[in-house]
Amino acid sequence: MGSNNKQVILKSYVNGSPKESDMELKASTIELKIPEGCNDAVLVKNLYLSCDPYMLGRMKKLDGHYVDSLTLGAPIIGYGVSRVMESSHPDYEKDDLLWGFVGWEEYTLITNLTTCFKNPTQRRMAGMTAYAGFFELCTPKKGETVFISAASGAVGQLVGQFAKLMGCYVVGSAGSKDKVDLLKNKFGFDNAFNYKEESDYNVALKRYFPDGIDIYFENVGGKMLEAVLNNMRIHGRIAVCGMISQYSLAQPDGVHNLFNLISKRIKMEGFLVMEYYHLYPKFIEMVLPHIKKGDITYVEDFAEGLENAASALLGLFSGRNVGKQVVVVARE
Amino acid sequence: MGSNNKQVILKSYVNGSPKESDMELKASTIELKIPEGCNDAVLVKNLYLSCDPYMLGRMKKLDGHYVDSLTLGAPIIGYGVSRVMESSHPDYEKDDLLWGFVGWEEYTLITNLTTCFKNPTQRRMAGMTAYAGFFELCTPKKGETVFISAASGAVGQLVGQFAKLMGCYVVGSAGSKDKVDLLKNKFGFDNAFNYKEESDYNVALKRYFPDGIDIYFENVGGKMLEAVLNNMRIHGRIAVCGMISQYSLAQPDGVHNLFNLISKRIKMEGFLVMEYYHLYPKFIEMVLPHIKKGDITYVEDFAEGLENAASALLGLFSGRNVGKQVVVVARE
Repeated sequence: MGSNNKQVILKSYVNGSPKESDMELKASTIELKIPEGCNDAVLVKNLYLSCDPYMLGRMKKLDGHYVDSLTLGAPIIGYGVSRVMESSHPDYEKDDLLWGFVGWEEYTLITNLTTCFKNPTQRRMAGMTAYAGFFELCTPKKGETVFISAASGAVGQLVGQFAKLMGCYVVGSAGSKDKVDLLKNKFGFDNAFNYKEESDYNVALKRYFPDGIDIYFENVGGKMLEAVLNNMRIHGRIAVCGMISQYSLAQPDGVHNLFNLISKRIKMEGFLVMEYYHLYPKFIEMVLPHIKKGDITYVEDFAEGLENAASALLGLFSGRNVGKQVVVVARE
Repeated sequence: MGSNNKQVILKSYVNGSPKESDMELKASTIELKIPEGCNDAVLVKNLYLSCDPYMLGRMKKLDGHYVDSLTLGAPIIGYGVSRVMESSHPDYEKDDLLWGFVGWEEYTLITNLTTCFKNPTQRRMAGMTAYAGFFELCTPKKGETVFISAASGAVGQLVGQFAKLMGCYVVGSAGSKDKVDLLKNKFGFDNAFNYKEESDYNVALKRYFPDGIDIYFENVGGKMLEAVLNNMRIHGRIAVCGMISQYSLAQPDGVHNLFNLISKRIKMEGFLVMEYYHLYPKFIEMVLPHIKKGDITYVEDFAEGLENAASALLGLFSGRNVGKQVVVVARE
C-alpha cells in the first residue's frame, strides 16, 4: 500500500478548443521507493510545473507532430522542477534538484533521464527560447525595429529585453491594459499596444512602425502574422516560435500575403528550443550579469496546487496569465 | 521625320487576371540617332525580349512593390538582348550586344545603362535565379529530396538539373503531359507529375516523397505550397522564387498550415536574383563546363514578332509556354 499521489490525467484528446473536462484530477497511490532492479532511475517529488503553449499539441491525437501525443488516462507531461527523493542513477543523489519532463502529479518515478538536467535554477526553457530565436535566427543589429506578439508571455518579455539591450526599437502586443503597462513600465519596451482594442492590425503596426519592421518574433500566428508581413521591411527576419492564436481553431486562419516573402526577401524560420541547448553556456554567460545587475527582469504567474493546474494551462490560450505560468505543487 | 518603331504599350493597369487588351500594339516613330548633347546613352535595335512572371507586378498599379509600376501609354519594359546602333557611352560601341532593361519596341534609346551589361550570351537571369535560389538558400546535400513546382519553366528546369548534378532525388510538377515528359526524358528528373490531373496534391506528394521533402523550390504558391508544407521533412528549406498561381487572383489563396514551420523547423526564404549578381562568376564557373559537356540543357519557347509579344507574356500565366519564353523582335 503506497502513498497518496494526486495526478492531473488526460481524460480525452483535445478536439478544437481545449476544455477543463479534457483533464481530470485523480487520486492515485505510488510506492515511494525505486523498484528492485530498476537502475538509472530517480524518484522525485514535483515542486513546480511549467505551463507551455506547445503542450496543447501533445494533448491532441495527431500524427506527424513534432512531439508524441500523450497517453489517455496517464498524467499530463511537461517541464518541471523536482527534488530527488531516491536515485539509482549515478548522476543524481537524494535532495538534488532536477529539471526535465515529469508527470503532473505529486511524485514521479523517472526511468528515462535523457531529457533531465541538474541545477534547474539556471535552466529555463523560456529564456533559452528567447535567446536562440532572437539572436540565432534574427541576427539583430543595433537600431533595427523589433515587433513581438504575445510580448508579456514567458518568452516575449525576455525577447523584448534582449532587443533593448541590443539597442533596437521594440514594440510588443498583448491582450490587456495591465500587460501593456507591464511591457512599457517594467520591461522597458519603447511602446506596446492591446491587440484586442485594434480593429485593424495593419493600422496599429503602421502607427508604431511607420518605416516598417526588421525583426518579428512570432508567437501568435494568423491575422497578426498577415498584418506583420505587410509591414515588414526588406531583408526582414521572422523567428516563428509559436502561433498561440491558432492552436484552438478547428481550421487555422489562412495567410494570404506570403508573396511579401519574395518582394521583401524575408526569411521566416521556425525553431524548437531543444535544438539549441548546446548554446546554453553562451546564453548563461550573456544573461547572468544582466540578471544580477537587475536590467533583465522576469514576471511569473503562479497557480497554487494541482487542483488549479488544468485551469492554469487553459489560461494560456485565453491570455489570462501574466508572464510565465507556473503551477506550484509543493514549495520544497 | 523618324523611322517606324512598333511598340507594345501598357494601355491600362492590370486588375485581376491580365488580358491582352491591357496592352496595345502601336505604330510610332523614332529618330535613329542619339540626340545632340545626350551623353552616356546608347541607341539599340532590340533582338530578343524575355517574358518573365515578375513583369505582371509592374503592370499593376501597386504601392510598395519591389519594382515600380510601369507608365501607362509607354512601352512595356523587360529584359532583352539588343544590338548597339550608336553609342555616346564609353563602355559601348556600335554592334556590341547588350543585355538589360529595354522597351518592348523595335528601337530603344537607353539613357540609364546601370541595369545593362555587355556580352549577353553569358548573362541569363533564369540561370542565375536557379543557381542563387538552389545553392545559396537551400544548401543542398547529396541524397536529399527536392521538389520543384512549375518545373519545366525557365528557372525550374535548371534547378532540377542542378539538383541532379548534386546527387539529389528530384521530382517536378508541371501542367501538361508534354512538360512532364520533358522533365523526365530531357532534363533527367527522377519523376514528374501533371498537377492538373491530381485532385489532391497531398496524395500526389506522398506518392513521390514517401519520406518527405528536404528542399522545395517554390514557383507557384497557394494550394501547392500548403500541400508541400504538410510533406516537408524536419529542417527542410523552401526557396521562394515565385508564386505564379497567385498573381492573377484578386484574393490570393490562404495558407493555413504554417505551423509546420515550427514543428519541422523549416526555413522559408524569399529572394530576388538582382541581389545575387555578385555570384555571377561562381555561377559561370560551375555551369559552363556542364553546358559544354551537354549535361545541362535548356528549352526555350520563341514567339515571333512584337505582334505576338502580349500573347506570349500572358501565356506564362496559363502555363502555355514550354521552357523559357522569348519574343523574337529581330534575329540580328
